[in-house]
Amino acid sequence: MKDRTKAARDYCRQNRERFLKDLCDLVAVPSISTTASHSGYVREAADWLAARLRQLGFGEVAVMPTGGHPVVVGELTGPRNAPTVLLYGHYDVQPVDPVDLWSSEPFTAEVRGDHVYGRGTTDMKGQILAALHALEATCAQGDAPLTVRVAFEGEEEIGSPHFASFVEKHKDLLEADFCLNPDCGMLAEDVPTITYSLRGLAYLEIVITGPSKDLHSGVYGGTVHNPAEVLARLLGGLHDERGRVTLPGFYNAVRPLEDDERQELARLPAGEEQYLQQTGAPRLWGEEGYTPVERTGGRPSLDVNGMLSGFTGEGSKTVLPAKAMAKVSMRLVADQDPEQVQKQMERYLAVHTPETVRWELRSHAAAHPSITDRRLPAVAAMSRSLSAIWNKRPVYARSGGTVAVVSDLQRILGQESLLIGFSLPDDDMHSPNERLHLPTWHRGTEALAHFFLSLAD
Amino acid sequence: MKDRTKAARDYCRQNRERFLKDLCDLVAVPSISTTASHSGYVREAADWLAARLRQLGFGEVAVMPTGGHPVVVGELTGPRNAPTVLLYGHYDVQPVDPVDLWSSEPFTAEVRGDHVYGRGTTDMKGQILAALHALEATCAQGDAPLTVRVAFEGEEEIGSPHFASFVEKHKDLLEADFCLNPDCGMLAEDVPTITYSLRGLAYLEIVITGPSKDLHSGVYGGTVHNPAEVLARLLGGLHDERGRVTLPGFYNAVRPLEDDERQELARLPAGEEQYLQQTGAPRLWGEEGYTPVERTGGRPSLDVNGMLSGFTGEGSKTVLPAKAMAKVSMRLVADQDPEQVQKQMERYLAVHTPETVRWELRSHAAAHPSITDRRLPAVAAMSRSLSAIWNKRPVYARSGGTVAVVSDLQRILGQESLLIGFSLPDDDMHSPNERLHLPTWHRGTEALAHFFLSLAD
Repeated sequence: MKDRTKAARDYCRQNRERFLKDLCDLVAVPSISTTASHSGYVREAADWLAARLRQLGFGEVAVMPTGGHPVVVGELTGPRNAPTVLLYGHYDVQPVDPVDLWSSEPFTAEVRGDHVYGRGTTDMKGQILAALHALEATCAQGDAPLTVRVAFEGEEEIGSPHFASFVEKHKDLLEADFCLNPDCGMLAEDVPTITYSLRGLAYLEIVITGPSKDLHSGVYGGTVHNPAEVLARLLGGLHDERGRVTLPGFYNAVRPLEDDERQELARLPAGEEQYLQQTGAPRLWGEEGYTPVERTGGRPSLDVNGMLSGFTGEGSKTVLPAKAMAKVSMRLVADQDPEQVQKQMERYLAVHTPETVRWELRSHAAAHPSITDRRLPAVAAMSRSLSAIWNKRPVYARSGGTVAVVSDLQRILGQESLLIGFSLPDDDMHSPNERLHLPTWHRGTEALAHFFLSLAD
Repeated sequence: MKDRTKAARDYCRQNRERFLKDLCDLVAVPSISTTASHSGYVREAADWLAARLRQLGFGEVAVMPTGGHPVVVGELTGPRNAPTVLLYGHYDVQPVDPVDLWSSEPFTAEVRGDHVYGRGTTDMKGQILAALHALEATCAQGDAPLTVRVAFEGEEEIGSPHFASFVEKHKDLLEADFCLNPDCGMLAEDVPTITYSLRGLAYLEIVITGPSKDLHSGVYGGTVHNPAEVLARLLGGLHDERGRVTLPGFYNAVRPLEDDERQELARLPAGEEQYLQQTGAPRLWGEEGYTPVERTGGRPSLDVNGMLSGFTGEGSKTVLPAKAMAKVSMRLVADQDPEQVQKQMERYLAVHTPETVRWELRSHAAAHPSITDRRLPAVAAMSRSLSAIWNKRPVYARSGGTVAVVSDLQRILGQESLLIGFSLPDDDMHSPNERLHLPTWHRGTEALAHFFLSLAD
C-alpha cells in the first residue's frame, strides 16, 4: 500500500495542469442557485459532474430531481467489506454582486500568482474536484480500494431547502460508514484543519409597510410613520451594548463552551490581528467575554445581510417610502433550534412594532447547528493523512459557517460527517474576487488520495 | 376692465384643448434633474419653454447657464409704471421609480376621467403652463397690462443648488414688486389656498463602512461589527417615543406656532381622516401635542428617504456587508438653519458611532424655511381673484414642502413670494401615477388671468 500511496501522489503531481483546467471548466458554469433566471446553469453544472463521475467509473449516476435544484448521485463500487464513504458536495455558488468590485470576470477562472480567481473556485467547486481528482489518482493504480457514494446538491447556498427530504426519500442511495464533507477550510496554509462543529442558520426577511405608496416627504413628513425608521429602530434594538443578541430567550438553549475546549481553541492561529487583517475592519467587535474564534465558532450571532428602502440612487429624492425591507440571519450553535429562533423574532416584532405600520416575517433558510464526535475512527485516519502531507498534526476547529446537510445526515441517517476542506480564510468566499490557493489545493488533493488508500488498509 | 376679464375667461375656456396639448408636449420631455444621464432632456425642456415665451411676445428670452442645469429668463414688457411680477417655476421633475407601479407611461401624458397622468403634470409643468396660458389670455385682448419677468429653473427637485448664486449674479433680470410662485397647491378642489409658509430642507446622506469588503456572515458574524446594524441603530435613535427628533439642539431655533395661527389652521379641511385616506397609512404618527396640519406645516420633521446595504435581491445571501447608506432629510421651520442642523447631525454621528466602523456625512441639498407677510397687497389681489373664480374666500395655509427659491429671493432681493398653485393633495407628486386634476387646472388658469388683469387696474 505504501507504493500505491506514493504512486497516487506522483499521479496528482503529474496531472496538476489537467486538474486546473477541469476546475476552470466547472467554474465557467454560473450556477447561482438563488437567482431563478440561472436555474438552467445550475442544471448544467449538475450534468457536468454526472458526466465526470461516469468517466471516473462511477455506476448508477443520476441527476435526481428535488422540489428545487437536482442532486447528483452515483457509486464507485469497491471490494466487498471495504468501507463506504459518502462524499458530499454542492455545485451551486453565491451571486456575484457587487460585480464591479471583481478584478476579473467571476465566471472566467483566472490564475494570478498562486491563486485561481472565480466564483466557486474555493466554495466549493475546487473542493469537490480535489476529492474526485484524488479518487482518480487512487484508482489509477488499480481498482477502487473502497466504495464511494456521492451526493452533490445544488441548493447549499440557499440553505439546502430540499436536501433533508431528499435524504429521507433516498436513504438507500446515501447510506455509508460516514460522510466526507470537504466544504470546510483550513485556518492557514500551514495549518491542516479538521472541523468538528458548524453553526446553524435562521435566515429571515422582515418587511415593514406603512403608507400605500411612496409619499412626498414635505407634504407628509411628520405625520406618517416612516417604515425605514421603524425598521431601523427594530434592527437597532437587536443587540445590547455588550454585543449580545437581545431576542428574549435567544441564549436559553446555547450549549456553553467547556473549559478544555476553550483552551484548545486558544491555541488556534486566529487571534485579533489575523481577523483585523482578513477583514479590514477598523476594530473587532462582539460578545463580551469571548475571543474572536469563540465568538464566530462557539457562540451564536445575528447579522443584517441586506437592507433596502426608498430612493437609493444618485442624488436626492424627497420621498417618504411606503416600505422597508431587511434580510436578517442568525448563526446558531448547539443546541439552538432555527424554528425556535424564528418564533423569538416573531414575538420581538409583535411586541416592538408600532401600530402605525404593518410587519411581515418570511423565512428563506433554516439549518440546525451540528457537532461531530472527535473520536470517530475516520477522524483519526484523516488526521494521519493530513499529517503525512503537511508534516504536522492538524488542529481541531469550530466553524462559524453553516452546512445544513451535516445536521440533516446526523438526524436522518445517524451519519457523522468528517469536515475538512482546502479553502483559506482570505479566499473571499461569498465576496468579490473569490479565489483558491493552488499550492494548498494540490496538497489537499494528495492528502485525500492518501486518505482513501489508508481507509482501505 | 370688467369686459376684458370676461373676455380672458372666455378665451381660457375656448382654448382648453390646446392648453392640454401643450402640457402633454412638455410632459413628454423627461427632465429628471437628479440623474446625470437625463441632463440633455432637462436642457430640452428649458429650450421648449424659451420657444414658448418668444411665441407669447416675451423679449430677451435666454437659456442662461449655471453651474448645473440652466435658468430660462425673459420679459414681457407692460406699460410704464405698471406693476412688475417675477413668475417663478421649475421645469425639472422627480425620478419615476418604482416605475412598475405606474399605470401608464410616466412621460406620455394620459387623460383618464378628470385627470391627466404623467410625471411633472402637477409638479410643476402644469402650474407653469397655467400661468403662461393665463398670460396668453390676458394679452389676447390687447397689449400686456403689466410687466412679467420669468425665472424657470431646472434644479428645484434637487434642492436648487445653483439658483441662489444665479439670483446674486442677475439681480437686474429678476427684480420685481413680488414673485408669483405657483409651486404650491390647494387643500381640496373646493378650497382655494394661499400658502404663507414653507419648510426648509437639509438633505443628507450617511455612509457607514466597516470591513473592506463584503464578508461571509458565517465566518465573521459575531466578531466584525455589521455596518447595516450600526446604521440602523443610529437611525433608530433619531426620534424619541413622543415623535420628537432627538438631535441635540434641533428645536432650539424653532419659532413656536402662535395661538391665533393654530386656531386658523384648525379650520383647514385637513383632519386625521383626510390624511389617512390620502396616505393609506394604518394610523397617523407624529410629534405629541400637535395636529397633523401643524406637524407637517408648522413643525420640523426628519425622514429616512432611502436606505441600502448588502444583498437585497431575490432569495438569500449570507453576507456581512462592507457598507450601509441612508439618505436622511429634515424639513425645517422658521427660524431653523439647514447648516446648523447638518452640524447637529455631524455631532450626533461623532458621539454615537462606535469605533468599530467609520462614518461619513454628505449634503445633497439645503434650503432655508420661509414665511411670507400675509398683509402684502398682492396677497389681497390674489385672494379676490381666487374668490371670483371659486365663489369662496381662500384659506391661508402652511406647506410642509420646500421651495428653496422663496427664501433665496427674500434674502437676496428682499422679494416676497405669493405662493399659490392648483395641485391637489392626492395628485401623487413624487410618487407613481402623478396626476393633475383638469377642472381645477382650468379654474386656476382663469384665476391667474383675472389676477394679472386686476393687478393692472
